[in-house]
Amino acid sequence: MSLPDFELVKLVQLQRRIKPSLVAMQAALDGLVASDIELAAEVGRHVRQGQGKLFRPTLLLLSAMDGGEVPADAIEAAAAVELVHTATLVHDDFIDEAQTRRGRPAVNAMYGPATALIMGDLLYTRALRHLARLSLVRAFQLMTETAVLMSEAEMLQVQTRYSLDVDEDTYLRIIYQKTASLIECACRIGASFLPDGDAMDKMFQQFGRQTGLVFQITDDIFDYLGDPRRLGKPTGGDWEEGRITLPLIAAWRRASEPKRRMLNTLAGCRDPRERAASWAEVQAFVQAHGGVEYAYERARSYGEQAKQALAGLAPGPRRELLATAVEYVINRLN
Amino acid sequence: MSLPDFELVKLVQLQRRIKPSLVAMQAALDGLVASDIELAAEVGRHVRQGQGKLFRPTLLLLSAMDGGEVPADAIEAAAAVELVHTATLVHDDFIDEAQTRRGRPAVNAMYGPATALIMGDLLYTRALRHLARLSLVRAFQLMTETAVLMSEAEMLQVQTRYSLDVDEDTYLRIIYQKTASLIECACRIGASFLPDGDAMDKMFQQFGRQTGLVFQITDDIFDYLGDPRRLGKPTGGDWEEGRITLPLIAAWRRASEPKRRMLNTLAGCRDPRERAASWAEVQAFVQAHGGVEYAYERARSYGEQAKQALAGLAPGPRRELLATAVEYVINRLN
Repeated sequence: MSLPDFELVKLVQLQRRIKPSLVAMQAALDGLVASDIELAAEVGRHVRQGQGKLFRPTLLLLSAMDGGEVPADAIEAAAAVELVHTATLVHDDFIDEAQTRRGRPAVNAMYGPATALIMGDLLYTRALRHLARLSLVRAFQLMTETAVLMSEAEMLQVQTRYSLDVDEDTYLRIIYQKTASLIECACRIGASFLPDGDAMDKMFQQFGRQTGLVFQITDDIFDYLGDPRRLGKPTGGDWEEGRITLPLIAAWRRASEPKRRMLNTLAGCRDPRERAASWAEVQAFVQAHGGVEYAYERARSYGEQAKQALAGLAPGPRRELLATAVEYVINRLN
Repeated sequence: MSLPDFELVKLVQLQRRIKPSLVAMQAALDGLVASDIELAAEVGRHVRQGQGKLFRPTLLLLSAMDGGEVPADAIEAAAAVELVHTATLVHDDFIDEAQTRRGRPAVNAMYGPATALIMGDLLYTRALRHLARLSLVRAFQLMTETAVLMSEAEMLQVQTRYSLDVDEDTYLRIIYQKTASLIECACRIGASFLPDGDAMDKMFQQFGRQTGLVFQITDDIFDYLGDPRRLGKPTGGDWEEGRITLPLIAAWRRASEPKRRMLNTLAGCRDPRERAASWAEVQAFVQAHGGVEYAYERARSYGEQAKQALAGLAPGPRRELLATAVEYVINRLN
């Protein structure tokens, strides 16, 4: 983590409002990761020490708040959702052959691919077993729907790797299934604990989905601009690994035929070093055609829709806190 | 598949008795594997074409039989169990770096490790989503308990690889969690559809567990003796990959200190070629100390316990068919 990170401060302030629930959620997480098998326990500790910002469980707990109270089962469900998220990161890092995760060695880099695969499976199945043991039927239904969507997105991403044929619709499908679906799922599981949960489901679905789309588009923009929160973080990772994202898709649409041919040649190459070498040219192409601006506009618009969805909520601390959460995501770009 | 395979004929005859259910189960499987994502659909077809003997769904359907009828939901649950089994094979082949599965290229060998990992995840999550969508809560609970056990077994197997410290208890834990738990789970899910399912659960658990233990011990013996059903199938795969199984554990217990030291030296080496070269010596060691005979005795004893568990069932076609199933497993060794 690095220099002035005002937006993260906002998230931390927000989390302070639900601190007891978040603390209990983390204790539940520790329990879910513990194992009498030494290797599993060791990798589990490694994974837990690299804990992220807990964005998904935070949204789940906020969504489940009823008059300031969070039901005990919602805390358990929040731990399960964070555990599923962790499992997907372990498998993702394996797929991307990532060396680090949150500044620490990735599981596959540290323990090898077989252990990474098994650890992901173990975290995944522990999370689902937790929901099943608590008989949280609605939560495990939502969670398995989402787990399928996420796996499909990974497959679609492998299939479309290096392909400039990825259009905005395919891109949106991938980022919805890969990222937004779990954020949406967290909100809907949270809402399922509300007395009027059925009636609220649609609203939380909208809110979670749009917030999730903003989240991923923002991440994809960072890969072109650099993450303002992490000065010096390298850009171009997506390009290097053949992931075609919104800034490039938008730029491509606006480009002339000769420029497209030029980019086509660069995109066809699969050698990582050559791709790294062509990154400056790709960045210039995207800049010349306003690709980042377009992506930013889309993110802003999804953010507005997320906030509009909140209009269906009664005014009060929950609505304010959820609005702060979506502001946090949008403002990461400023 | 190869020459005189009388035992397999017995299984096929048994399956003929529940043919309509098995056909419906396979149609359900096709549906669960289908995808609008080309790559997923292609790998799915590849996996389906390598279909195995359907032992687990056969047991589930037999367990669910009530007066000759199999409930429609049991057929769907049987498809989910077979799909989970398929998912574990895809991940297992990746972990073992297997080149083939059932005489065809393994998914990892044909499509690469990333696709194998994702395909396993996709099949897994599709299976669990199927149970969740049908609101088969009991089946979902049993399945997630089992999925955790299987992942833990994989981890334990990685942890104890190459280690002669694996004793019979650890071995039994591994094979119960890795193999027997899913067979037990299939039987219990089947029984959950019976009107007196709760009362029958314990019996089907015993039957499934013991049958599953026989199944895996038998497989492990094949790796020393050669599979009598598949003439010329190479032996020593477990030794080469550092898996210490019951014949070796039993032989070790009976061996003198000098013989143990000799084996220790061989076991410490992790180079696959050197391990392959030491196989004849290991085989001789196991033979000299009656390791296979001991394992066979254990398998026979678990088989007897499985048949005893069936005594709790009312006489009739279901009991006969389940007895035939366990006979099939035991007799694979004759």
